[in-house]
Amino acid sequence: MKLPRGYRYAAVYAGIRKQEKDDLALIVSDQCAQAAAVFTTNVVQAAPVRLGRKHLKASKGRIAAVLVNAGNANCATRTGDRVALASCKAVAKALHTKPEFVFPASTGVIGVELDARLISDAVPKLVAALSPDGFEAVAHAMLTTDTGMKVASEEVALNNGSIRVAGMTKGSGMIHPKMATTLGFVLTDAAVAPDALREILASATERSYNSLSVDGDMSTNDVVVLMANGASGVKPGNKERNLLQEAVTRVMENLAEQIAADGEGARKLIIVRTTGFRSAEEARRVARAVANSPLVKTAIAGSDPNWGRILSAAGYSGAVFNPGEVDIELQGIKVCHRGLAAEYDERALKHRLNESKIDIGIALTGRGKGEARFFTCDLTEGYIQINGSYRT
Amino acid sequence: MKLPRGYRYAAVYAGIRKQEKDDLALIVSDQCAQAAAVFTTNVVQAAPVRLGRKHLKASKGRIAAVLVNAGNANCATRTGDRVALASCKAVAKALHTKPEFVFPASTGVIGVELDARLISDAVPKLVAALSPDGFEAVAHAMLTTDTGMKVASEEVALNNGSIRVAGMTKGSGMIHPKMATTLGFVLTDAAVAPDALREILASATERSYNSLSVDGDMSTNDVVVLMANGASGVKPGNKERNLLQEAVTRVMENLAEQIAADGEGARKLIIVRTTGFRSAEEARRVARAVANSPLVKTAIAGSDPNWGRILSAAGYSGAVFNPGEVDIELQGIKVCHRGLAAEYDERALKHRLNESKIDIGIALTGRGKGEARFFTCDLTEGYIQINGSYRT
Repeated sequence: MKLPRGYRYAAVYAGIRKQEKDDLALIVSDQCAQAAAVFTTNVVQAAPVRLGRKHLKASKGRIAAVLVNAGNANCATRTGDRVALASCKAVAKALHTKPEFVFPASTGVIGVELDARLISDAVPKLVAALSPDGFEAVAHAMLTTDTGMKVASEEVALNNGSIRVAGMTKGSGMIHPKMATTLGFVLTDAAVAPDALREILASATERSYNSLSVDGDMSTNDVVVLMANGASGVKPGNKERNLLQEAVTRVMENLAEQIAADGEGARKLIIVRTTGFRSAEEARRVARAVANSPLVKTAIAGSDPNWGRILSAAGYSGAVFNPGEVDIELQGIKVCHRGLAAEYDERALKHRLNESKIDIGIALTGRGKGEARFFTCDLTEGYIQINGSYRT
Repeated sequence: MKLPRGYRYAAVYAGIRKQEKDDLALIVSDQCAQAAAVFTTNVVQAAPVRLGRKHLKASKGRIAAVLVNAGNANCATRTGDRVALASCKAVAKALHTKPEFVFPASTGVIGVELDARLISDAVPKLVAALSPDGFEAVAHAMLTTDTGMKVASEEVALNNGSIRVAGMTKGSGMIHPKMATTLGFVLTDAAVAPDALREILASATERSYNSLSVDGDMSTNDVVVLMANGASGVKPGNKERNLLQEAVTRVMENLAEQIAADGEGARKLIIVRTTGFRSAEEARRVARAVANSPLVKTAIAGSDPNWGRILSAAGYSGAVFNPGEVDIELQGIKVCHRGLAAEYDERALKHRLNESKIDIGIALTGRGKGEARFFTCDLTEGYIQINGSYRT
């Protein structure tokens, strides 16, 4: 994995989670980076979300370090704001920077007080451990019910040299992902102006995290941050901007796909593709409704080509269409032709539905140009087992 | 159970479902009844839904008989419209009435052709079996994955005599009930004018089936019918109208509660109550979001008082409120006071959460008057098992 230049990483066990596994991590950019962030739109927001927003404003969109902990969301607690600020101050002091250049993020249980001393006591050890090789250690430390780390990277050759993009993420609870915390940190060594950076993040988020059924509605702690520190010495020209945009989008799509594939209890990644709708918005509504349907997701878990549930979910999505114009494909095999059962080899299809990556294609045969793509996963007994006893 | 006068019932096995269990049923009113109905708003609508709407229009809101089958939804099939019409014609002929006085309803798998001959061949047997005692036989015949029949009744004394209301329903798949077929038939022997009947049904539906997370969005086959045949000889006066309204509402709330309690795989009925919001609409949004949250529903399954998930679901519901004004109670025990953890005996509460009926109270401490109530159930492994292999 070719990592962007100019970043260092560290992770330690600070005693926040019961299990002895790294739970506190730091990403540091040697030169203060330009940054953009998207935050949860939940009216209930965790203390680090509120403080991160404030810091980004105070620092005029610059970040020197990201401090992330797992095991406690620092949300809906009496001392939340103080704990988040004290943690950033401890890191700022150790790094000889200002607190507003430290961006905090937390994930874990809601409503349990987080002991600030656990963090401040661990900061010296954390800073001492900083290394350019710690990327995966951080990616591991921020996981909760995830079964594995999720990272992706790209390198793009531009006229004046190459730039690199690398991202790490965590997230699970995929039935309604808007309820489970997703954190994402995407780093590049390109030099990018603040406005351009915000546009790149907004566009890439739309095609990745917001196509993961996450949408406007998110958990109390969700945040995705894009940092650009310019350490490559390369500033993409106007004509090269789309190359950087594409690289960031690919990294974030890759991360979103990994989240879906590692949905709690999931055995299969599901990609829902919609085409031919009147607008991209209508295509999105249909893809989202199908991707969110527990009946579709359990059918896929059981390798059952129950396309009636897909048609029904499309029907209540809010999109307006003629059911007699709907074609549905599973793994590229047509199961519904113009709203009616198509002829197909059910045994062969069931076999294909045992694969770990499932493609659901929903096409309107009219002349619409609206299309969309959503990532989700199947719904299994494992989801229930994980979430029935998460806190206890 | 005191049944309304003037109705007869029958159920037989017509071979529509594989398992040999009654799958075709008939409700007949000896005198043609006034009727009102609410239908699914899914853009994909089953043939019987389309025909039922047409018949009700042609008959000027009167119904002589309801024909219902389980085992096949008669939806998204080539022959659906013809099958539904032929079935109504067969019943009309046997009952010496017109087809438009026969109201069809179907539930079961989507996209599989329904053989009209199975129904027409069974009609003579069905009509011969009609009896005032067959109410529960019909309630049984229309079940699919339900674990038991769902019926309720009321008797109300008015000035000129007593009137009776009885209802039967089927429904399951409670994670997102809008995707699972719900049928409801509510019968009264009161005499009611058409407009009044429609108002009574609309109001009662709002507080029952539409507070079951069903909402505007429903399955391809959902329908609830209210029939009033006047066989009691009692026509409620203007001042007595609300007594009839209340009786119908109680019957329908009772049925909705039974559906929630028998949600697929459910072990617990959950009632979400919201109070103090700015409007009834905002209170409904919050109650619905909490009732639909898989994370809340799995927590309840695990008897885990994880109120953070409740607060988070309220937060993304779309309602606007100050999290610092939220109180949350579980089984009447306060777990969240003004957005923060309350002091409570966790062991005692976990014990209470093992009960089969769970009350979640969410109160804003401001001065709002908006309140709502939603019915749902916990989410267990059983849901996955049922829905992963429904069709096969």
